[in-house]
Amino acid sequence: MQKEPNEILVISIKRLLRRGATKQLKNIIQKTHTVDLSTVFRELSSDNRKKLFSLIETLEQKGILFSKLEESTFLDLVKTIKFETLVEIFDQMPADDAAELLGRLDEEVSDKILEKMKTKGSEDVEELMSHGEDTAGSLMMPDFIALGEDVGAREAIDALQNKFLDVEMPFYIYVVDEYEKLVGVSSLRQLVVVPPEKPLKDFMAKDIVSVKTYTDREVVAKVVSRYDYLAVPVVDDDNRIVGIVTVDDVIDILHDSATEDMLKMAGVGDDYIETQTILRGTKIRLPWLFASFIGGIAAFLIIGRYETSLAQYTILAAFIPVIMGMGGNIGTQSSTIVVRGIATGMINIRDFWKIISKELAIGLILGIFYGLFIGVITSVVYRTEPVIIPLAISVGLAVVSSMTVAALVGSGIPLFFEKIKIDPAIATGPFVTTAVDIISIFCYFVIATILLGL
Amino acid sequence: MQKEPNEILVISIKRLLRRGATKQLKNIIQKTHTVDLSTVFRELSSDNRKKLFSLIETLEQKGILFSKLEESTFLDLVKTIKFETLVEIFDQMPADDAAELLGRLDEEVSDKILEKMKTKGSEDVEELMSHGEDTAGSLMMPDFIALGEDVGAREAIDALQNKFLDVEMPFYIYVVDEYEKLVGVSSLRQLVVVPPEKPLKDFMAKDIVSVKTYTDREVVAKVVSRYDYLAVPVVDDDNRIVGIVTVDDVIDILHDSATEDMLKMAGVGDDYIETQTILRGTKIRLPWLFASFIGGIAAFLIIGRYETSLAQYTILAAFIPVIMGMGGNIGTQSSTIVVRGIATGMINIRDFWKIISKELAIGLILGIFYGLFIGVITSVVYRTEPVIIPLAISVGLAVVSSMTVAALVGSGIPLFFEKIKIDPAIATGPFVTTAVDIISIFCYFVIATILLGL
Repeated sequence: MQKEPNEILVISIKRLLRRGATKQLKNIIQKTHTVDLSTVFRELSSDNRKKLFSLIETLEQKGILFSKLEESTFLDLVKTIKFETLVEIFDQMPADDAAELLGRLDEEVSDKILEKMKTKGSEDVEELMSHGEDTAGSLMMPDFIALGEDVGAREAIDALQNKFLDVEMPFYIYVVDEYEKLVGVSSLRQLVVVPPEKPLKDFMAKDIVSVKTYTDREVVAKVVSRYDYLAVPVVDDDNRIVGIVTVDDVIDILHDSATEDMLKMAGVGDDYIETQTILRGTKIRLPWLFASFIGGIAAFLIIGRYETSLAQYTILAAFIPVIMGMGGNIGTQSSTIVVRGIATGMINIRDFWKIISKELAIGLILGIFYGLFIGVITSVVYRTEPVIIPLAISVGLAVVSSMTVAALVGSGIPLFFEKIKIDPAIATGPFVTTAVDIISIFCYFVIATILLGL
Repeated sequence: MQKEPNEILVISIKRLLRRGATKQLKNIIQKTHTVDLSTVFRELSSDNRKKLFSLIETLEQKGILFSKLEESTFLDLVKTIKFETLVEIFDQMPADDAAELLGRLDEEVSDKILEKMKTKGSEDVEELMSHGEDTAGSLMMPDFIALGEDVGAREAIDALQNKFLDVEMPFYIYVVDEYEKLVGVSSLRQLVVVPPEKPLKDFMAKDIVSVKTYTDREVVAKVVSRYDYLAVPVVDDDNRIVGIVTVDDVIDILHDSATEDMLKMAGVGDDYIETQTILRGTKIRLPWLFASFIGGIAAFLIIGRYETSLAQYTILAAFIPVIMGMGGNIGTQSSTIVVRGIATGMINIRDFWKIISKELAIGLILGIFYGLFIGVITSVVYRTEPVIIPLAISVGLAVVSSMTVAALVGSGIPLFFEKIKIDPAIATGPFVTTAVDIISIFCYFVIATILLGL
């Protein structure tokens, strides 16, 4: 339902830009949601981006557009904008968005912008930028509602309508004690149902879940999605609330982390973007193929050692692909299930041996099934070979061992990496396949050499 | 930060259950967030689940627990609960949660429960259950705030405090015209800043994005995450608002769809759950390995045809793994990038040829790099072989062609499936690897036969 209206939008805007129809363009810009406008920018040339951007009338819409653009489009657009305008735009943006965007610019440029921004705004932004990347502190919004425990319901509603009008997401009312420590939370809805004089401490929820400024963003996302929160409070080491992370940021994190996991498992690193140039795409992907290159070299050294066996029974070579393929595929199944299970919390590292033995059992059963199947087919297709029985048995046993080992390695490697606190996704993809390939081929030749009496 | 407290919770509850310490258990249940309690249920035996559940005091908490349990734990628990209690629990649950949970039960049981529920509640639930699975209609909450265009700001606030007190997520005030068609949206925050008498139509936002009851849930998730909404209105074909889908459901959808994509690409179907039994896990994974089984058979038939060439140069066999491995890995890279790009909207099917040619170029460059590398290593390691130069060139060229073809097939298959409206993730995993294996091996033997003059 979205693709077509956007396509029409892109075409119309391109046409109007060609014709220099300023008035109509301004009209479209006003009527279009900034999110949709941002997808148009992706499709435009640098020149047209500059033109269209200059037609946006409010600083606020310009700021929203900034935060909706892809990184490369944003960086390209920023170059065309006057320094003073940039300062103005960043000055009126929410501090969390400004901090994120400034973090994408060269430090020299962002320092200059911060210097020129109004004191209060730039302080908030600098504070946010001081937290480690990918932590709650770097994501949080410093605007939130916090009131004392003794404030009454009526008084709290008044505060919402006056003092806290600027707060972007006024869903939760956080309650702090005399030392400004977070002690509870209430909601708009609760405020209107209790008697007006009742103090917050008498009806607030006390089992409040918070995160620290240095909590990793993926953990923050887990907390929000686990408890169905619209926002989670961020506290410092003294349990004083310093900001909130809202659900829209969490959605972005979930998007990103699923994408990152998939790319890491496929061996493409974690910062691959589809719109990259050929050269940059090549550069990122090149080192990740090195694992399978090393594996390939190892495999040909192993097979080289069995050259004399092969010379006697050349047909042995024909079964290398099926043994590698079956092992590789079940290994990918196992590692994906484990990596995704860890990410979603369905798999717990405590159950290490339970998971490993379950995968081992599944690998063995599937291995016996396909091993038998392939053994039978081998003995039919190559029935004229002189040593068909030991040959078929060798191939079948090699499939069994390859699939069993693959399930074991495929589940064991990510679990092991999780245990020693290395991201299981990054360590899994090419490594599992390569390890499985080498082990499978080695097993095959050992079995065949014995059974064929070579 | 979460793992440890939960572990302690599980241990304490198990110990208290053994000791039959009812009072302490009730105490813990009251103090623990229901979400955390649900993870405890996963770890308990059927008997203990029943015991612990009977100690939960309010129907509301029982209902929340239901909606937080994993499917298998939920079904197991339901069996131990009296029919009358079940009806009571479902009666007071939000209609959307009740509809989802009842959909998991046998139709016979859910029909009986619906029959006994209070008329109004069961009508809402039945209405929701009548919509297709995985559509906005089946996900939506029938409670929302809708007011006429001429209602003033003050009047709207009054309505919120009285008429709409039960609405779970009172963030948006939807505005409907005299025919009950959705014409705009306003927010709590806007209501308090405009003059009290101002009618909604004068300050509501008109560029409202809605979804239809039959819109697919992944599209709903895209809309909500794209526009940073907390909820999206669901309308019927006459544009009358019938419900809203809230951001917490969207988070669940995003979780699920990322997991499904990964599992499909790994060839494990899309309903694999980590807690399944060995037998069930085996059954689900078995058919997905069939593609690589067929590929393996095809590969050994191809190699079988070149048996005489192999008999002359057995060393040819040693390079099968490296050629398959390099092709397989770059193919996985390409298909993952494309599948994930389509899912996140970064890749547009309109750019079909642009994407294919980019991947082809990357495949060719990486192929030449690794082909050369492997060619050189081959000529060093096997320098004593009589036909070393044509052999090394054959292996190098085979790697080039395998990697180029793999990048082409890896990106082309998912794009093609997307074009003909088949889920690209499901069609990608094992198929890509298998196709690449067969093509690579074929190319290798063709090249080697020509260059070695066999």
